[in-house]
Amino acid sequence: MADVAIVSAGQSVFTRSCGESIRELAFEAFKEALEGLDITTGDIDASIICSAPEYDKQRSPAGLISEYLELTPKPSFYVETVCSSSSTGLRVAWSLVKSGLHKMVAVIGFQKMSELSSRDAAERMGRGADIIWESPFGLTMPAGYAMYAQAHMDKYGTTEEHLAKVRVKNSHYGATNPKATYRKELSLEDILNSEVITSPLKKFDCCANADGSSCIIVARGDVAKGITDKPIWIVGLGAATDTMTMAGRELLTGLKCAQEAARQAYKMARLKPQDIDVAEVHDCFTVSEILAYEDLGFAKPGEGVGLIEDKETYADGTIPVNVDGGLLSKGHPIGATGGSQIRTIVRQLRGEATEAQVKGAEIGLVHNIGGIGQYGNVTILRR
Amino acid sequence: MADVAIVSAGQSVFTRSCGESIRELAFEAFKEALEGLDITTGDIDASIICSAPEYDKQRSPAGLISEYLELTPKPSFYVETVCSSSSTGLRVAWSLVKSGLHKMVAVIGFQKMSELSSRDAAERMGRGADIIWESPFGLTMPAGYAMYAQAHMDKYGTTEEHLAKVRVKNSHYGATNPKATYRKELSLEDILNSEVITSPLKKFDCCANADGSSCIIVARGDVAKGITDKPIWIVGLGAATDTMTMAGRELLTGLKCAQEAARQAYKMARLKPQDIDVAEVHDCFTVSEILAYEDLGFAKPGEGVGLIEDKETYADGTIPVNVDGGLLSKGHPIGATGGSQIRTIVRQLRGEATEAQVKGAEIGLVHNIGGIGQYGNVTILRR
Repeated sequence: MADVAIVSAGQSVFTRSCGESIRELAFEAFKEALEGLDITTGDIDASIICSAPEYDKQRSPAGLISEYLELTPKPSFYVETVCSSSSTGLRVAWSLVKSGLHKMVAVIGFQKMSELSSRDAAERMGRGADIIWESPFGLTMPAGYAMYAQAHMDKYGTTEEHLAKVRVKNSHYGATNPKATYRKELSLEDILNSEVITSPLKKFDCCANADGSSCIIVARGDVAKGITDKPIWIVGLGAATDTMTMAGRELLTGLKCAQEAARQAYKMARLKPQDIDVAEVHDCFTVSEILAYEDLGFAKPGEGVGLIEDKETYADGTIPVNVDGGLLSKGHPIGATGGSQIRTIVRQLRGEATEAQVKGAEIGLVHNIGGIGQYGNVTILRR
Repeated sequence: MADVAIVSAGQSVFTRSCGESIRELAFEAFKEALEGLDITTGDIDASIICSAPEYDKQRSPAGLISEYLELTPKPSFYVETVCSSSSTGLRVAWSLVKSGLHKMVAVIGFQKMSELSSRDAAERMGRGADIIWESPFGLTMPAGYAMYAQAHMDKYGTTEEHLAKVRVKNSHYGATNPKATYRKELSLEDILNSEVITSPLKKFDCCANADGSSCIIVARGDVAKGITDKPIWIVGLGAATDTMTMAGRELLTGLKCAQEAARQAYKMARLKPQDIDVAEVHDCFTVSEILAYEDLGFAKPGEGVGLIEDKETYADGTIPVNVDGGLLSKGHPIGATGGSQIRTIVRQLRGEATEAQVKGAEIGLVHNIGGIGQYGNVTILRR
């Protein structure tokens, strides 16, 4: 069967409040993705629109956005796994192309969270957990990830300083990312002294709600080669779930859905963790990045903190991670995040990541988690 | 590449108020789909959860439902095109199997609309139209379809009596469907004398909100043959969009998205309208069924009313349509509707539609529309 490649990737500036409608916001990413490509909207056979519902008033945005982007009458539909929606969209796009149904598919992720107050946004976010048995009792996203942090600290002796060092790194790279919401370098003290949100997580251990969009265009291999000199091949795809309820989880010192998704992706790509040159991981909280190091096999269980201590996940380390600033710096416009991670890896593998290029990167990995660890997606790309 | 077949189809009873949580509601359909199959939940490689968001408070139901149905840790995600969500889900499931990614996929559609008052439900439904330019000005679903009816009457001389005859037929068949919300036969007078909702549409020209679920299990051909003696083959898939805005439409006497989806499905199946033995069409309103006759090529433009006048769409006619009662009798639990239509065709092609079996049906068609005609899906199945 035909191989499938990414031909282009775009994203909007991520910001706390974009001042645009969602169709205009989606256009920002679509425009960047189309720039420099010798194709028209008519060449795109289908579009997949990804977001988490209910942060803005519009329902069923696929029809709206496909009309605005002049993709009508091509099929368009909506795909969602909360924070990993656009990675799931990429997986579906891959299968639409691989199955022979389509030659070229656009995956457009967006989120406009600024319509809601922080309190209302947190309440909506809580509805992405179990609204009968858990979220009414206070299981917001920070609370869930605080439980992971507590469990990791308890079992492995991880400290608040270890967590803060993740943010130090990510703020360092975020400072040079022109599309990031936060572009200020933070010191260890800044982070450790920031207000407690849910112990042990403090303000700067948490990513922020944002407005933003992303767009990934995938195509059948032969078509991709006709469009770009630098196709980026989708070589590994993994997806798994864990229970929606935290009470149902067997593990709190890692995410089983991420471990399983990674296993699938490595198997499909016939690669090992050591083969990865650069990675984007879902650092919705600082602790999430530590868990990701271990879940992806970059470190053994409990040894993830060693990577950040030794600066091995900096751009010149053995396994550079989130050298675009991560969710912690970029902000987390839910449906757009996966696409933004993929865009970073595409730019790295093309040698176009001017802000923090990992030298000679050939193979990259994207780790994107949905909700409080109920959806795991791992994607491996190759130049 | 491997062919893809439906191995099983289930649905809950559709009702105005189910008194269950959405996970329990989803289980009803899943249970019927699994009955009599010699498989376990572990054999299902992925699940696709389909609904329209915001009728109940739970967000991201894929994780919740996959946990409840014991499908964890297999991947699960959410697909939406409002009223045609589960047909879109089937299309995605087909591609996941056809691409080689999975062997067996469950498509689970549901909607629980009874949590909201009718007024609130209508407001949420309006958010499935353009919330900046159209729905705030009164473009609810009945209003949009009333515009189609007016245009069809104006151009072709269609009358309110013609429309009512669709409901006479569908109520006739709905009366024998044990899963339908409405099981009472209605006379022409009942319908013509019912209260006006949006002229020319009266109460009995409109389908009703409902609670319900559906489940379709698809598998790779060789796997399907090992599970069932009666695999139902997916031979044609068509999907298209029209503009979200009614203002953007070029046609009001038919749905261009349905015409385009039908063209694709017939082409893929190498079949013509005359080859179809039985069809399920999206009769959200009586006029919608007349439009479908024409959009699917069962009648020429403007001649759809002839089919209902001559009773050609009754079970013993030349092209039986909605002989399970249609949305008008069954009710329309948005995300579950496409799956229910598919289930009816599966039962027809297996000769198991005891209430109103079309003799010797070999080829069936499902026409499922999303929103005010912005998403069109046509699926052709073969025994």
